[in-house]
Amino acid sequence: MTLLRPSVKACARLLELFRAQEMPIFHTREAHRQDLSDCPPSKRLRGRPTLRIGDIGPMGRILVSGEAGTEITPECYPRAGEVVIDKPGKGAFFKTSLSEQLTVREITHLVVGGVTTEVCVQSTLREANDRGYECLLVEDATDSYFPDFKQATLEMIRAQNAIVGWTASLKALENGLLNTRN
Amino acid sequence: MTLLRPSVKACARLLELFRAQEMPIFHTREAHRQDLSDCPPSKRLRGRPTLRIGDIGPMGRILVSGEAGTEITPECYPRAGEVVIDKPGKGAFFKTSLSEQLTVREITHLVVGGVTTEVCVQSTLREANDRGYECLLVEDATDSYFPDFKQATLEMIRAQNAIVGWTASLKALENGLLNTRN
Repeated sequence: MTLLRPSVKACARLLELFRAQEMPIFHTREAHRQDLSDCPPSKRLRGRPTLRIGDIGPMGRILVSGEAGTEITPECYPRAGEVVIDKPGKGAFFKTSLSEQLTVREITHLVVGGVTTEVCVQSTLREANDRGYECLLVEDATDSYFPDFKQATLEMIRAQNAIVGWTASLKALENGLLNTRN
Repeated sequence: MTLLRPSVKACARLLELFRAQEMPIFHTREAHRQDLSDCPPSKRLRGRPTLRIGDIGPMGRILVSGEAGTEITPECYPRAGEVVIDKPGKGAFFKTSLSEQLTVREITHLVVGGVTTEVCVQSTLREANDRGYECLLVEDATDSYFPDFKQATLEMIRAQNAIVGWTASLKALENGLLNTRN
């Protein structure tokens, strides 16, 4: 987890920035229903982990909604009025209400942070881009267990004239937002 | 296009292998409706290409269904009975019938080839994995304009105990299939 800590701090600052600007915030977390009806067998049975999805671990049942282990980390804890979405896949659009939540608020542009870069974050950006959203991934607000994968993913996203979207530092985003809004 | 040629030959051999085993084949291609109603403005307007989606190029309207430029290359041309799916996104599941086509045939495992590795192929594998399919990407049947991106994508797919799926050479797949079936 140590490898992912720096991005948690940056995500917390990103959230504060959005709150200060009164811009809508959506939290997503990978978590399955208690009966695991939204967990494909291929996902539960893959590999040889010590504990599988739904098994009881030190922080409750693994990857199950409502358990302590799937709770959002205190630094990034949702405030009243912010949307929280549990998602069964890596991508945040698959089998969730995210698309409808964005549409009803007429949101067209997404600023994304989170972990891990090449798995959930990348899958979500690819889904968002196919759905017509303009996406910006905040470089220091995302991390991977594998630093090379983070770097490659950032490059893939912005390649070929932003084929998936754009990336920028939190500082650049902050400057851009404050200049535009003031 | 030269960078992508080797994978076209491998895809053709992969198709022959599947035809010989009488296994179902699905072709997908990125192509929009003639009225572009399935092309988000973000996609059409991004970057500064000489020709945009829907504009008339040397092989017909760019990325529009039914035009010469979106036709499947002769080496991989579909045979009667094979499914052909036009897709508006990079991912082959978004706004297509692919999921239903697979479900109705009770297909649980996908063997994937095509271009480009880190864009359409990767997006499709990520969608398939979230939907519970066991996916194998054939390493020599896929290519990218950026060889480093191909390599990084293969590694990301099979990392963490096949978090997205598996990869193998065409030869290994061929040996595996022939040994299992004979």
